[in-house]
Amino acid sequence: MLKNLVTELIGMVLATTPVASQSTGSADAGLIDDLVAANRILADQGVLDGFGHVSVRHDKDPSCFLLARSMAPALVTAADIMEFDLDGNPTDARGRTAYLERFIHSEIYKAHPKVQAVVHSHSPAVIPFGVVGVALRPVFHLGGFLGTGVPVFEIRDTGGEATDMLVRNRELGAALAKTLGAAPVALMRGHGDVVVGQSVAEAVFRAIYTEVNARLESEALQLGQGQVVFLNEAEARQAAETNSAQVGRPWELWKAKALAGGC
Amino acid sequence: MLKNLVTELIGMVLATTPVASQSTGSADAGLIDDLVAANRILADQGVLDGFGHVSVRHDKDPSCFLLARSMAPALVTAADIMEFDLDGNPTDARGRTAYLERFIHSEIYKAHPKVQAVVHSHSPAVIPFGVVGVALRPVFHLGGFLGTGVPVFEIRDTGGEATDMLVRNRELGAALAKTLGAAPVALMRGHGDVVVGQSVAEAVFRAIYTEVNARLESEALQLGQGQVVFLNEAEARQAAETNSAQVGRPWELWKAKALAGGC
Amino acid sequence: MLKNLVTELIGMVLATTPVASQSTGSADAGLIDDLVAANRILADQGVLDGFGHVSVRHDKDPSCFLLARSMAPALVTAADIMEFDLDGNPTDARGRTAYLERFIHSEIYKAHPKVQAVVHSHSPAVIPFGVVGVALRPVFHLGGFLGTGVPVFEIRDTGGEATDMLVRNRELGAALAKTLGAAPVALMRGHGDVVVGQSVAEAVFRAIYTEVNARLESEALQLGQGQVVFLNEAEARQAAETNSAQVGRPWELWKAKALAGGC
Amino acid sequence: MLKNLVTELIGMVLATTPVASQSTGSADAGLIDDLVAANRILADQGVLDGFGHVSVRHDKDPSCFLLARSMAPALVTAADIMEFDLDGNPTDARGRTAYLERFIHSEIYKAHPKVQAVVHSHSPAVIPFGVVGVALRPVFHLGGFLGTGVPVFEIRDTGGEATDMLVRNRELGAALAKTLGAAPVALMRGHGDVVVGQSVAEAVFRAIYTEVNARLESEALQLGQGQVVFLNEAEARQAAETNSAQVGRPWELWKAKALAGGC
Repeated sequence: MLKNLVTELIGMVLATTPVASQSTGSADAGLIDDLVAANRILADQGVLDGFGHVSVRHDKDPSCFLLARSMAPALVTAADIMEFDLDGNPTDARGRTAYLERFIHSEIYKAHPKVQAVVHSHSPAVIPFGVVGVALRPVFHLGGFLGTGVPVFEIRDTGGEATDMLVRNRELGAALAKTLGAAPVALMRGHGDVVVGQSVAEAVFRAIYTEVNARLESEALQLGQGQVVFLNEAEARQAAETNSAQVGRPWELWKAKALAGGC
Repeated sequence: MLKNLVTELIGMVLATTPVASQSTGSADAGLIDDLVAANRILADQGVLDGFGHVSVRHDKDPSCFLLARSMAPALVTAADIMEFDLDGNPTDARGRTAYLERFIHSEIYKAHPKVQAVVHSHSPAVIPFGVVGVALRPVFHLGGFLGTGVPVFEIRDTGGEATDMLVRNRELGAALAKTLGAAPVALMRGHGDVVVGQSVAEAVFRAIYTEVNARLESEALQLGQGQVVFLNEAEARQAAETNSAQVGRPWELWKAKALAGGC
Repeated sequence: MLKNLVTELIGMVLATTPVASQSTGSADAGLIDDLVAANRILADQGVLDGFGHVSVRHDKDPSCFLLARSMAPALVTAADIMEFDLDGNPTDARGRTAYLERFIHSEIYKAHPKVQAVVHSHSPAVIPFGVVGVALRPVFHLGGFLGTGVPVFEIRDTGGEATDMLVRNRELGAALAKTLGAAPVALMRGHGDVVVGQSVAEAVFRAIYTEVNARLESEALQLGQGQVVFLNEAEARQAAETNSAQVGRPWELWKAKALAGGC
Repeated sequence: MLKNLVTELIGMVLATTPVASQSTGSADAGLIDDLVAANRILADQGVLDGFGHVSVRHDKDPSCFLLARSMAPALVTAADIMEFDLDGNPTDARGRTAYLERFIHSEIYKAHPKVQAVVHSHSPAVIPFGVVGVALRPVFHLGGFLGTGVPVFEIRDTGGEATDMLVRNRELGAALAKTLGAAPVALMRGHGDVVVGQSVAEAVFRAIYTEVNARLESEALQLGQGQVVFLNEAEARQAAETNSAQVGRPWELWKAKALAGGC
């Protein structure tokens, strides 16, 4: 009983109370809070499991980015946020372990200066699209940012036939960043996906609606025996533009739910 | 019992400001409370996400209707309810922003005098039916109101090939209202649906059971390889009539669950 | 705010505190408590929605049975339990309204003396099996009681082409009881199912595992493109016998979860 | 914060007696706590239902193993943990009833000295794979341990055509252990699966990701009309090796969630 009480208390301290920022150097406290919230939201929404991660480019130094130490996203707090350079080296580790796959983030920030936030997930409805020859395309307006389809990263092309599927070094990260190109999403065959945005809220919005769209598209393809009306290129572009202005509305809702303990 | 009381109290403080009605002019306080409850119910039941909305015709002035300001339905309180005329103009905005798609509501109230409540959602099981050539029909009695099928609104017919998919003006709203006709539901291709009723409770009942029926029909079509026995026209009509008298029973249950904090 | 507090308090009184029995005549208090728990369990497990119901034969008078008044099962308490005779007449209504479909229960108790409990549900995974020509059969041991398949009740055979799908009188109830025969389950086309047992716990076990088996079978038929190994007749019979002795174990777990507020 | 504290306190009182270890002889208290946590995690994650069980080899005596008494895994506490020898006999029953299927565990420990933990479940997404002729193979890296496929145990081969499907004696347990061989998982036709590991955390990780992989593979096969790119043998092996070093991360997350009352 004592153990439970201690566990609960620690849980409260670590997981549910302060998402308020503690300074990790010079990054804006609000940005760190948004990053912590993003971790919690994506875990609460079922996009991130015990693995996967989300990062944001440093607001004062674009050659750095912020990413939690290697841990489950649902438990991340401000004190867990680390700084990295664009080679994936931590700038102030203080004994904390970094994610093996931080190179997903570093190489994307390096190759794509406009990208401000990156999500890597094992998004369950998305994974099947990465292992079959079916394009992930928008079936409804909230998936508009998917355009006319998204690229698929095949790790064998760079790492050979015997990798452990992880983007664990700069070479693989650079190959993934190249595959991503200007797209908002790249599927990672046999692994999951990477989603980017011009803000934490936009990357989170896209990560969640990539999952939702994947689920709807799979259902539609089965229902329609392969015959589905997707958004055309102009509709997708217009819808994406409209939605970009709306990313704040679900963000507040998702954040309130995730920080209240989920469920 | 202590747990419940504490949970309820905290829930009231944390999750919502009072849903108790505050006068927004001359509309009945109970009607406003029902509209707030409808928002919460539809969000809690997974029919509305961070987007989507529900409205009710003003009880004292049929040329007005009530609709929340632009925000997530799960967070709506009485203070967020605004009044609009049938051209979609707010009558007393007080700085609050209106939904872009209020014209879905205004034009339906304008074209269909019997309609008293309108729900616009991105109902997940319904969206696939709007993008394939498969009719949404009742597979069980609670979907009876779907009759022999429901119309599908294709926005390209009115707005052309390059819209952002939103019903953002009177012309598009009028086209949707015309497509709806006397049906209780119209699918909106690549977007979601609109559901109407002669009361808030009826519109909510229909919105939820449209979603349930869609899920069951999709499953049945797959299981039966396309061969499904639907309710015939008379059965659908009779079942709809019986259910109309029953909409109060699930309403109380759904409302208790949604106002208690969901989950 | 006052309204909310009152609603919550009433909710606590009606829904969550006393499942402890209050005498409704001469029925055993423990039996009434089990019936209340059954209502809550089946709602919590997603077998019953706002509709559907569960009954038990009176322990002292086999020509009577106990069934809640017309209300959502999730909210049933001991005070809501009514007594009926085998013609579906309440023996002590005290102003409470009976379910329209009490004849499902009365006619089954009348026709089948061994049946001690009856569940009528709109079990979501089961409904598709009632509208297609695919037999519901055991794919795993916990569905063993399904034997080599279960009957399907087609209401048109008795009520004609224009019913509202409800078993709302003795004639329809007798037809359903006849279709059920000695089976533990009968599907009701376009409606749901009825499940019986020799105790409340057994009927609840069967109702839940009929739903689970339906879900697994649907998945297996799709995965195996129609080629599935079902339990043979002897395996089904043996498994059903073994499980009959085990119905108490999940009952305690389900009851604890449902009475703790679900989730 | 108050809400969480109150909820946790009530949760402790209502849902569980202490999971803190009480000595059951000479087994390490931490090992018993891990076993209790494993029960709760697997129930909370939907792998175990009211049935199914998990065991661990005794840390001081490899000819014994620890397994709860016959009860629902979600309710297991340290006081419920029993010791058994490799013939399935309890060494210190103290009136507690053992699981009918303890022979699944005893015979696997007997036949496979490297195995340190065993999970037997009715894993819902996995059951369909056991009744159709489709191989369960890794579609993503976290399922790597599935290698190039896993064996299927057909009880008819040992027990004949009329069993109740349960592994209820040594002969059936030995046949299952033989079918399992060096694999981490064996499907049990018409029943569920058995999953093994070199630690409790590894067995739990594998049990959960077998379920996740099954769900994803089923979806991918349908989406891709049978054409799916699986991990090749080298990728599966490499991914399994990497994941073995990571089993602690989700374990902490799952344990915190399960012990906090789930949901």
